[in-house]
Amino acid sequence: MKFVAEIDVMPHKELLDPQGKTVANNLSHVDINGVTDVRIGKHVTLTLEADSEATARATVETACQKLLANLIMENYTFSLRAVE
Amino acid sequence: MKFVAEIDVMPHKELLDPQGKTVANNLSHVDINGVTDVRIGKHVTLTLEADSEATARATVETACQKLLANLIMENYTFSLRAVE
Repeated sequence: MKFVAEIDVMPHKELLDPQGKTVANNLSHVDINGVTDVRIGKHVTLTLEADSEATARATVETACQKLLANLIMENYTFSLRAVE
Repeated sequence: MKFVAEIDVMPHKELLDPQGKTVANNLSHVDINGVTDVRIGKHVTLTLEADSEATARATVETACQKLLANLIMENYTFSLRAVE
């Protein structure tokens, strides 16, 4: 079966996010007001083949922990869906 | 009212995504198999103050088009939710 995982890798809430801070500070220069906070991370779309949803979920977990996220600075969340 | 927008900015499907391709090619080196495709983009969490959901949605649209996404190479999707 084929699965698609939509993964978000974001900097920990406790940490300063300089990229997000810069965007937040500069939105008003392009006439966009009312934005109080911006956090920027990565979005990863992973397409994979697996026997079951449980296997797919385990593969995505491993990929996040070993390769996609730096767990010292980032956390990850993902959703998984089966595609035909 | 306070709103949180979860924005995904991804490279167009038609375009090569070298970063994603590199990850896809190297997952097998860390014993992760079955992954057929990887696309990597940005995830942006925007917190904003607005009078109504329609205003918030318009602000997020403008921010994406003017600052967050390069529409030549990327497309964006977002979801918006009200928070107290």
